[in-house]
Amino acid sequence: MTSMKYPPINLKEKLTKFSDHWSPRVIAEMNDYQLKLAKIKGEFIWHTHQDTDEVFFVLEGEMSIEFRDGSVQICEGEIFVVPKGIEHKPVAKEQCKILLIEPKGIINTGSADGELTAENDVWI
Amino acid sequence: MTSMKYPPINLKEKLTKFSDHWSPRVIAEMNDYQLKLAKIKGEFIWHTHQDTDEVFFVLEGEMSIEFRDGSVQICEGEIFVVPKGIEHKPVAKEQCKILLIEPKGIINTGSADGELTAENDVWI
Repeated sequence: MTSMKYPPINLKEKLTKFSDHWSPRVIAEMNDYQLKLAKIKGEFIWHTHQDTDEVFFVLEGEMSIEFRDGSVQICEGEIFVVPKGIEHKPVAKEQCKILLIEPKGIINTGSADGELTAENDVWI
Repeated sequence: MTSMKYPPINLKEKLTKFSDHWSPRVIAEMNDYQLKLAKIKGEFIWHTHQDTDEVFFVLEGEMSIEFRDGSVQICEGEIFVVPKGIEHKPVAKEQCKILLIEPKGIINTGSADGELTAENDVWI
């Protein structure tokens, strides 16, 4: 039996706690890294994380990430690691639910900033 | 269309590539961290990772992690982060498939060592 001291983190339950797009919520920390859930739909902006790789894990639906010289389609149950310093643009035709893994403090729009820049370090 | 330059990592496909228990396989790297798949069944040994937290993500089946003062049951779609320095023992009554996230170079048995110590940094 699970004791209250050590509660597991249920992704589906956490995903019910928000509905806005492109606004990652933190669900766990591992050392100086964070695991975040996000719902995405439509086109994000071109941006770059100069100092870190970024993990995308598709939990439900599908998305693609465009690069200046190619793209990747990521389906449910698939992972892709965007290498640091590589400009990219996430896109989802229909709503897609993803898990992100990246260092604490990373801004979702990287060096691009703009109106899609989400509040950072928001826990659910 | 996904270009060959940017292949996604399909977890189910990767899980077909090995069958032994308690022997994590690396599927991706993010900075100095690694994402690993493992199949587990039975009782692991008590051990501690003195310098790092460790993420367990149950992909299929269920497992528990025992602590000296409690335990957590982790079901499919659930995550648990074992804090660094906390002695723990993973257990799975039936085969369970998990994703681990931890710094590169981490030994599966931590400071305990022993016959269950797996070869490190094995990619699939």
